[in-house]
Amino acid sequence: MRSALELFTEQGFEKTTTLEVAERAGVTERTFYRYFADKREVLFNASNELQSVIIAAIDAAPPSTDVLETVVTAMEAGAAVLEENRSYSQARAKVIAANPSLQERELLKFSTMSAATSAALRARGVSPLAADISAESGATIFKIAFETWIGDDSAGTFAHCIRTTYNELRALAQN
Amino acid sequence: MRSALELFTEQGFEKTTTLEVAERAGVTERTFYRYFADKREVLFNASNELQSVIIAAIDAAPPSTDVLETVVTAMEAGAAVLEENRSYSQARAKVIAANPSLQERELLKFSTMSAATSAALRARGVSPLAADISAESGATIFKIAFETWIGDDSAGTFAHCIRTTYNELRALAQN
Repeated sequence: MRSALELFTEQGFEKTTTLEVAERAGVTERTFYRYFADKREVLFNASNELQSVIIAAIDAAPPSTDVLETVVTAMEAGAAVLEENRSYSQARAKVIAANPSLQERELLKFSTMSAATSAALRARGVSPLAADISAESGATIFKIAFETWIGDDSAGTFAHCIRTTYNELRALAQN
Repeated sequence: MRSALELFTEQGFEKTTTLEVAERAGVTERTFYRYFADKREVLFNASNELQSVIIAAIDAAPPSTDVLETVVTAMEAGAAVLEENRSYSQARAKVIAANPSLQERELLKFSTMSAATSAALRARGVSPLAADISAESGATIFKIAFETWIGDDSAGTFAHCIRTTYNELRALAQN
């Protein structure tokens, strides 16, 4: 759905109709609504894939008492989904930043990812409280590292930004 | 706006019209829209007060190198805003949990609070990365502690739940 992003970038998200988005993708408006609940969802196509990769990484992780490390390693695996297309992520972030309703949707996606992460941790025997905190902290690390990655040309890979952000959290919590 | 919450609880958020909410509050629909951007905002009346208390606590905190501790102390001060009316918080949380558009709005409020917290920390000389991580972690702690507080009758005060959640985060990060 790169072309939908182009439309939003050129003429603004609010001013772009669902019909225009559908036409750009070469489908009817009716077909569009079979695949997307609303216009906003077009920008969150990768969210499901991202979540699947993260959950699979948690499920596949060796048993460990370091729950945060398990989560951060999974976030690094998730980063690989976005790593190859930084310019798309940058353009997408710009459209989202300009529109509060898109920000709300993005936050809901992060929240859903966090809930799924917590459930995967509990399934490994982690206590509910530790699972929730680790999952939410993982989402925080992902979010902040993402901003560093797309905002700073010299920041290195997304996975590297995740590790740096995690190290900073550890340092802050060890005060 | 306790009566709006009653309406939402009785007949559902979606099925309640703005006119009904306005009438319950004894104002016209037009007056309602002078005070609230939309129907959802009625449930986030306390968010601004909460944020003001938290930011004021950060501004007033003694100089410290323990940034997370500064944030958590401010969250404890914020907890006092909600402490006295646990049953309202419980009923409100139930309405929000039943409605994705309300969840989105709540997440946006947390995000706004987190941005304001980060700005207050930066104004005290904290580095942008440390400020962002501490602010987001503070919001995480607040959110998780809130759920414990309203969900568990034996969990103690909201402020106590915040301290417990914070201690768990520290333990997880010190692995």
